[in-house]
Amino acid sequence: MTALDDIIDLDPLALDRADPESVIAALAQACSNTGRWGESDVLGTLNHIDDDLRARAAWLVRRGRAFSLSLPFDMNGPQNGWRRRTNPVHTMLDTGTDAERGQGFPHGLGGADDVVAMPLQCSTQWDGLGHIFDHGMAYNGRRAGDVVTSAGDQVTGIETAAAHIAGRGVLLDLGRFLGEDTHGTGGELEDGFAITTAHLRECIEAQGSTSQVGPGDIVLVRTGRLARARREGWGQYAGGPAPGLSITTAGWLRRTDIAAIATDTWGFEVRPNEFDDSFQPLHQVVIPNMGLYVGEMWNLDDLAADCAEDGIFEFWLTAAPIPFTGAVGAPVNPLAVK
Amino acid sequence: MTALDDIIDLDPLALDRADPESVIAALAQACSNTGRWGESDVLGTLNHIDDDLRARAAWLVRRGRAFSLSLPFDMNGPQNGWRRRTNPVHTMLDTGTDAERGQGFPHGLGGADDVVAMPLQCSTQWDGLGHIFDHGMAYNGRRAGDVVTSAGDQVTGIETAAAHIAGRGVLLDLGRFLGEDTHGTGGELEDGFAITTAHLRECIEAQGSTSQVGPGDIVLVRTGRLARARREGWGQYAGGPAPGLSITTAGWLRRTDIAAIATDTWGFEVRPNEFDDSFQPLHQVVIPNMGLYVGEMWNLDDLAADCAEDGIFEFWLTAAPIPFTGAVGAPVNPLAVK
Amino acid sequence: MTALDDIIDLDPLALDRADPESVIAALAQACSNTGRWGESDVLGTLNHIDDDLRARAAWLVRRGRAFSLSLPFDMNGPQNGWRRRTNPVHTMLDTGTDAERGQGFPHGLGGADDVVAMPLQCSTQWDGLGHIFDHGMAYNGRRAGDVVTSAGDQVTGIETAAAHIAGRGVLLDLGRFLGEDTHGTGGELEDGFAITTAHLRECIEAQGSTSQVGPGDIVLVRTGRLARARREGWGQYAGGPAPGLSITTAGWLRRTDIAAIATDTWGFEVRPNEFDDSFQPLHQVVIPNMGLYVGEMWNLDDLAADCAEDGIFEFWLTAAPIPFTGAVGAPVNPLAVK
Amino acid sequence: MTALDDIIDLDPLALDRADPESVIAALAQACSNTGRWGESDVLGTLNHIDDDLRARAAWLVRRGRAFSLSLPFDMNGPQNGWRRRTNPVHTMLDTGTDAERGQGFPHGLGGADDVVAMPLQCSTQWDGLGHIFDHGMAYNGRRAGDVVTSAGDQVTGIETAAAHIAGRGVLLDLGRFLGEDTHGTGGELEDGFAITTAHLRECIEAQGSTSQVGPGDIVLVRTGRLARARREGWGQYAGGPAPGLSITTAGWLRRTDIAAIATDTWGFEVRPNEFDDSFQPLHQVVIPNMGLYVGEMWNLDDLAADCAEDGIFEFWLTAAPIPFTGAVGAPVNPLAVK
Repeated sequence: MTALDDIIDLDPLALDRADPESVIAALAQACSNTGRWGESDVLGTLNHIDDDLRARAAWLVRRGRAFSLSLPFDMNGPQNGWRRRTNPVHTMLDTGTDAERGQGFPHGLGGADDVVAMPLQCSTQWDGLGHIFDHGMAYNGRRAGDVVTSAGDQVTGIETAAAHIAGRGVLLDLGRFLGEDTHGTGGELEDGFAITTAHLRECIEAQGSTSQVGPGDIVLVRTGRLARARREGWGQYAGGPAPGLSITTAGWLRRTDIAAIATDTWGFEVRPNEFDDSFQPLHQVVIPNMGLYVGEMWNLDDLAADCAEDGIFEFWLTAAPIPFTGAVGAPVNPLAVK
Repeated sequence: MTALDDIIDLDPLALDRADPESVIAALAQACSNTGRWGESDVLGTLNHIDDDLRARAAWLVRRGRAFSLSLPFDMNGPQNGWRRRTNPVHTMLDTGTDAERGQGFPHGLGGADDVVAMPLQCSTQWDGLGHIFDHGMAYNGRRAGDVVTSAGDQVTGIETAAAHIAGRGVLLDLGRFLGEDTHGTGGELEDGFAITTAHLRECIEAQGSTSQVGPGDIVLVRTGRLARARREGWGQYAGGPAPGLSITTAGWLRRTDIAAIATDTWGFEVRPNEFDDSFQPLHQVVIPNMGLYVGEMWNLDDLAADCAEDGIFEFWLTAAPIPFTGAVGAPVNPLAVK
Repeated sequence: MTALDDIIDLDPLALDRADPESVIAALAQACSNTGRWGESDVLGTLNHIDDDLRARAAWLVRRGRAFSLSLPFDMNGPQNGWRRRTNPVHTMLDTGTDAERGQGFPHGLGGADDVVAMPLQCSTQWDGLGHIFDHGMAYNGRRAGDVVTSAGDQVTGIETAAAHIAGRGVLLDLGRFLGEDTHGTGGELEDGFAITTAHLRECIEAQGSTSQVGPGDIVLVRTGRLARARREGWGQYAGGPAPGLSITTAGWLRRTDIAAIATDTWGFEVRPNEFDDSFQPLHQVVIPNMGLYVGEMWNLDDLAADCAEDGIFEFWLTAAPIPFTGAVGAPVNPLAVK
Repeated sequence: MTALDDIIDLDPLALDRADPESVIAALAQACSNTGRWGESDVLGTLNHIDDDLRARAAWLVRRGRAFSLSLPFDMNGPQNGWRRRTNPVHTMLDTGTDAERGQGFPHGLGGADDVVAMPLQCSTQWDGLGHIFDHGMAYNGRRAGDVVTSAGDQVTGIETAAAHIAGRGVLLDLGRFLGEDTHGTGGELEDGFAITTAHLRECIEAQGSTSQVGPGDIVLVRTGRLARARREGWGQYAGGPAPGLSITTAGWLRRTDIAAIATDTWGFEVRPNEFDDSFQPLHQVVIPNMGLYVGEMWNLDDLAADCAEDGIFEFWLTAAPIPFTGAVGAPVNPLAVK
């Protein structure tokens, strides 16, 4: 019986009586991948994807239909300035209105160019392994200050993942499975709803054999929170209440040996968090300890509607982040192909 | 005999005696796709990719080996400030050194966040259809000023391509085919070398059956210019002399009905340009008139080495741009999977 | 009797029955300074400041007490994203936490550096003469598109004002004169309160001889709107309802031949604007037609309290904008010295 | 005999035989202002300016002639990307070319807006007290990591200086005094020329009584390096060889009790630095230990020409930085009025 066995079926109800630090520490230890791929490893759970897995995943392309899982990147996005996170500010260096009046190029050529300023965590993104620390430690037993300085992540920067994130994607549509579809959006979970391991298992069971989750998979969890934001406006989408994974799913995330997980919410885990005074404790367990790649603010609604229609919840997925050297997160336009 | 027949075998040597405006106008007219997909079309040559093509392209994944075709995005990039294009400036909002000293989060959580400011054309990218105009006109017969204002591209912004660019990629390794490999980089063409239709055809012939180019393909042309920049430093990589496509290839680009083309150079076409006083005339023909998606500064060297080794020059390619609303270009991390 | 005589005592009550276009056109014509300083002029009303005025204004320094009239520039500012205007995003390139851990400099040196991204109109600022156009025309009879392209203001960029804005400042504390001081802030005008010429004259009369306004003066109008934002939060400070100058003050602004005017509000003129469907019509009259320099979001409260105490409303004022080449507005830290 | 007496006449020739760490430490100790203005002080040498000094300095305005001492802020500036420092990237949110085509405003209104992204140390600037550390310590005995984190300078941010920097300016034109005017620029010192205390004293003597330097003065040292950059291009202006103050002037800078010093060079002190392996050792002495405000890249040439002509080297100077909260440096448009 391993530490992981002890926590894999952690009862969410027990959290009320628990000490946050102890729970976080126990989960962190049980789920740790520190040293698993050698002390120089920088990839974490992306190690679960190999060429064979990728080759088999390509067979999942049947119709050839592609879905972009990215939000638009613009000023109408979810950010509200909190933690100095703005929406992307896109400005032009040259325009068509200029071109009509002449820009000094020969033979009738005209051109437009543009510029953007943005937080790397402003919209559809991957959290890099340097994004979160646990008691001053980063992934794989490194000191946080040895990894991420003002010059960026010197070790596990997002560029290390540039060529890796392509393989089998699986959609777990919890919003549709557990939520009621009262708004024609396919079902939405309530804010504050904590998705447990039992929920995940039941959803897989209900969705059928194409939803089996195993090593190297990229798991996409749809809560319906984004659909609600589309109906009601962003409001507190960034940082406010949301459905999301319970901290008690840490064992499942570790035992399945998935390569990555992504949700349609700002913060992946349930908010408010399950301990009164905690902040993103599941992040604290899975990023620096497990080395799990976490995607946030993914647009899963169109893909989910298609999966609901044909009953096939697996697909080929590429989600290669823009490789900003030393970044602790990065924008991505994930493409699912069924 | 169509206008396209007239220009498909345009003799590069004839350019010396030609009037630039007339040549550009003739090519623009012969290669035009204006109206081809209806007057409201915004996709241009991406229309050539459909689900069937994509489904067949997925069969090209054999080993499952993935190649990122993106340069690193950082201050060590090729930009030198010309046309207000800088390299990406990546800064931190929070760091590990801060986390070690305490950031005020409970239970030992620490975090790092980051920000970037950059031109959208600074590194590995797609030119959007609003990037270039011809005599004040944008793609599909629209007035440049109706399309691209200071608010961005209101019609053909890069977000329109978000879900489309995935399919069959073909590498034409002109650097290896025509260049001498005197530096162990696989072969490099000289700066100013104009790749003609004949060169393209001969390269396809030499590379063999996996290099056939047809409708909907995404063609990657490796010149070796990037390999040279790696040996010698960026120097004039951005905007200076480079090998690249001759303006006389416009007919071939149109007749093959490819979906997109990308090179390992700053500007796709040969530089200096083939007319004394012109500036990127092939852009002027293919972007606003043909609606061709053009990729620049792609890192093709690792992929090319692999193709040279196994003799297979086709692969699955996803190259989904970050969908900045209204952008006339966008960063991309293209992923080729063989 | 000149056109200016006709409009100098324009009755604000008459606006209800008036056609906006006609009123704006009449004011624009009557107040025009087009050609007044030659057709190549780029300074507008700053021409009213000369060395003699400046030399005399220096005599106003008596105690040597200096007041910064700038808001803090940070993420807690008034901007809310409207018109892609964010608050300044300030990030670090190096920090003290890094320095403590060692940055690789010799002999114990450490350093910190920083970066900012911001709209030039985000906080305490000058509007440049290229900021507003009237029917496609910029200041001094130039076509808007000949002046301000994507490359910036080619003619009247804020850099032209770099050495000019220093001289006599006069505070007209309308908030204190007309408002009730129910919050201990010195008095605040209601949102939507239109300050008329009569109000200005009465305030000058009430404040006494140090408040006389004449050629070359830089007039600061305190409404109390900023004080209210400090009490209640920014809310709609940027772009929402506010007290401010009535469009009927255009004649007074012109006749007094002041060099510049600044207020403690987002937009200088009363909001909602006095015509139902208009947007900043007083800007339209005074910037492109009169060439008046307008300052916005100035922090006048401390200065105003001092003036109320000693009864002296004139002072030496320097307000030299950061000379961003081609900017249509610029941040400034105005310094009043009494 | 104090420690300051010991080092005030430090022989520059002795540096060759000296240990850098010892010299820096001795100067740091002798010149320290730690605790001088109380342990909560954040202003450093700006404490030397008081209202009386300011009131007397205003008498220096005689003709009323104003000189902007700022460089233009644009892409043609000195930065080359080193240490992620770019030149300011200024882009437009709206333009006149857009306005001509209609922007949707009523009654013929049009507008232009703009944005900038830039390092705060990119052009004419003040170094804040949090810019440099000595062995992990910031100004006034504080730990570097307690002062400057990724959130900025929490203690001595440039906003603390917002209302202070106005008073008597004195120009010491070393370029004219010691250099030969072979280029019609008024005289330029050679790169690598170290200005010593003796040079400063002789220059003051030669320039006459208006050049006396005392408590609270803002001293401007012209080397001619900027004039050379104007003749020859920026080249290595940023970070490369330059004339500048010798580290042996530390004692003079301390004993005179000046409020601030600024030069027309990138880095204020001589470069290459006077110890083989050191980096900006005079910064290390004067900023964290003395609390001295240092200005860099000031444009002193027009002012210097005027001073040379009328023989008056003192003037009223305002140099109020844009108060970016928590900034360790800030752009400024200094205004000298004679």
